[in-house]
Amino acid sequence: MKKVNLYEENNFSDKGMSNYLVHDSPYFKILNFNFKPGQELPIHSHDIEGQLSITVVEGEGEFLAAEGQTMPARTGDVLISDIAEPHGIRAGTELRVLVTIAPPI
Amino acid sequence: MKKVNLYEENNFSDKGMSNYLVHDSPYFKILNFNFKPGQELPIHSHDIEGQLSITVVEGEGEFLAAEGQTMPARTGDVLISDIAEPHGIRAGTELRVLVTIAPPI
Repeated sequence: MKKVNLYEENNFSDKGMSNYLVHDSPYFKILNFNFKPGQELPIHSHDIEGQLSITVVEGEGEFLAAEGQTMPARTGDVLISDIAEPHGIRAGTELRVLVTIAPPI
Repeated sequence: MKKVNLYEENNFSDKGMSNYLVHDSPYFKILNFNFKPGQELPIHSHDIEGQLSITVVEGEGEFLAAEGQTMPARTGDVLISDIAEPHGIRAGTELRVLVTIAPPI
């Protein structure tokens, strides 16, 4: 059993998305990404089995999907995607998200 | 790909922890639990393989662990536990948490 606090462990960077590995195990991988306004996790996909969730802990922006589609991203949103499906996120405000990938990649 | 908003989908109940199933797949199960002050997910464990995360989306309380141990639970905290390890949470304020279980049980 272990506990981390996202606000203590990870901040924001002018250089781009700030990445913090919360946990990695045979069961899932958990990452925290922080974005300043305009920063993004570019749309991407991996041709493997599994799913991921992106939870918006704080802030606003938009989720990025296939063919240029976007969806509003707000605090409390949880996006579920196949790992093989194109996905990404772009920040409108300072934005903290938690990403869980199962099985881990 | 699907998106849910925890604030829209689940509220609080005077009767006890308010439970919302966000997602269930062969890869992971994602649940949202909301608690009014004093409500709790009692300490429990399952004798199976796997891990879970408990993310505090909003509010404060305490995580419950083996042998009566507790740890403060605050917004932005992520607790990682084996499913087989005793775990629980008790609310001090109105409390929203997201629980991810992999593999799903």
